[in-house]
Amino acid sequence: MPHTYTYPRPALTVDIVVFGFDEGDLKVLLIQRGCEPFAGRWALPGGFVHLDETLEQAAERELSEEAGLRDVFLEQLYTFGALDRDPRERVVTVAYYALVKMSGHHLQASTDARAAAWHAVHALPSLAFDHAGILETALIRLKGKVRYQPIGFELLPAKFTLTQLQHLYEVILGRALDKRNFRKKILSMDLLVETAEVEQGVAHRAARLYRFDERKYRRLTERGFSFEI
Amino acid sequence: MPHTYTYPRPALTVDIVVFGFDEGDLKVLLIQRGCEPFAGRWALPGGFVHLDETLEQAAERELSEEAGLRDVFLEQLYTFGALDRDPRERVVTVAYYALVKMSGHHLQASTDARAAAWHAVHALPSLAFDHAGILETALIRLKGKVRYQPIGFELLPAKFTLTQLQHLYEVILGRALDKRNFRKKILSMDLLVETAEVEQGVAHRAARLYRFDERKYRRLTERGFSFEI
Repeated sequence: MPHTYTYPRPALTVDIVVFGFDEGDLKVLLIQRGCEPFAGRWALPGGFVHLDETLEQAAERELSEEAGLRDVFLEQLYTFGALDRDPRERVVTVAYYALVKMSGHHLQASTDARAAAWHAVHALPSLAFDHAGILETALIRLKGKVRYQPIGFELLPAKFTLTQLQHLYEVILGRALDKRNFRKKILSMDLLVETAEVEQGVAHRAARLYRFDERKYRRLTERGFSFEI
Repeated sequence: MPHTYTYPRPALTVDIVVFGFDEGDLKVLLIQRGCEPFAGRWALPGGFVHLDETLEQAAERELSEEAGLRDVFLEQLYTFGALDRDPRERVVTVAYYALVKMSGHHLQASTDARAAAWHAVHALPSLAFDHAGILETALIRLKGKVRYQPIGFELLPAKFTLTQLQHLYEVILGRALDKRNFRKKILSMDLLVETAEVEQGVAHRAARLYRFDERKYRRLTERGFSFEI
């Protein structure tokens, strides 16, 4: 590391890909930009890193300010530093991704009156900056993650059916899964606990509700596993 | 992303954990600091990101300037932004890790006369800044990586024995592996090609030399796999 700090420095931001799962769709939270460049275009929530906050604190602050989201699962994704990613000047952004239970969070209008809204990942509007690429990277990470760490705890309601869980894996992986195989594999992981309840308000025969065994979930998260589906 | 760029900004650097494999040891390249803070202490190679270079270009330039290394395998690791990681001012660093064939690269004295040297990972000196933590993160990444991507191509000489390959896995994983199991699994991956040659200049019975099937290696790198050892 050099001993002088005299170089002109890039601006430093954080951007966050917030994933939610609702009505069988993987969704992402976007903010409509109020000003140039890309005025009116949708973008990932994000903003400057202040000198007195860590990168993660900056991401948490932006999620709170721009969408009223607090206490969500947050993990660093990748840092993007292409020369021309912002038309105004050199901006390097540390991207994070977040997983959110959509049922438990109420989106609020952002403080500077820009709209915040969920969009289905398979039907996204055109995004500002290089945010489409950042989102693509987050999807690849999520796809990779389901192969060696349990997911779902942060995206599903506390109690869920096996069909909901399968749909979650299907929308993340982007392909249909065989129902019998999926159930056999997921149950063999000993990660789910059968509750005494069944789903409510459905026309078809009500399915059993499950929940995650939190202790086993955490252990699998730390230790990793191999889940080929 | 906000539309004003008036915040004071952190300094932005890159730091690189360069791994090599030599004489059965996993090694890391360190630079001895010539000035305060941490004068005389060993540190990861790295430095400022210039406005006209990408993050990866900055890492490549530092490796070239500080150690004469060019054209090495380089991948982004993680971005570190703790408030107090540099005693002088707020510095955020984008860490990379590199894998180097030690036989093929000759270290040169760095341009500003600081020493560059390989150190065994299991016998490291005290490091400057938060570089011990960055190195630890790189080791964890490497350990995780061997489970789902082939490694070794970038660390081993073009032709190597199965014992050398096993030692590489052992020093990365930090534990002994059963020889018969290791050979069975690695050969079943159909990744290695037996050459007609045996190792030279050894006292014991000379072992067969293998090389990687480059096409299969690349395919496995892209597709990933599950290698439980």
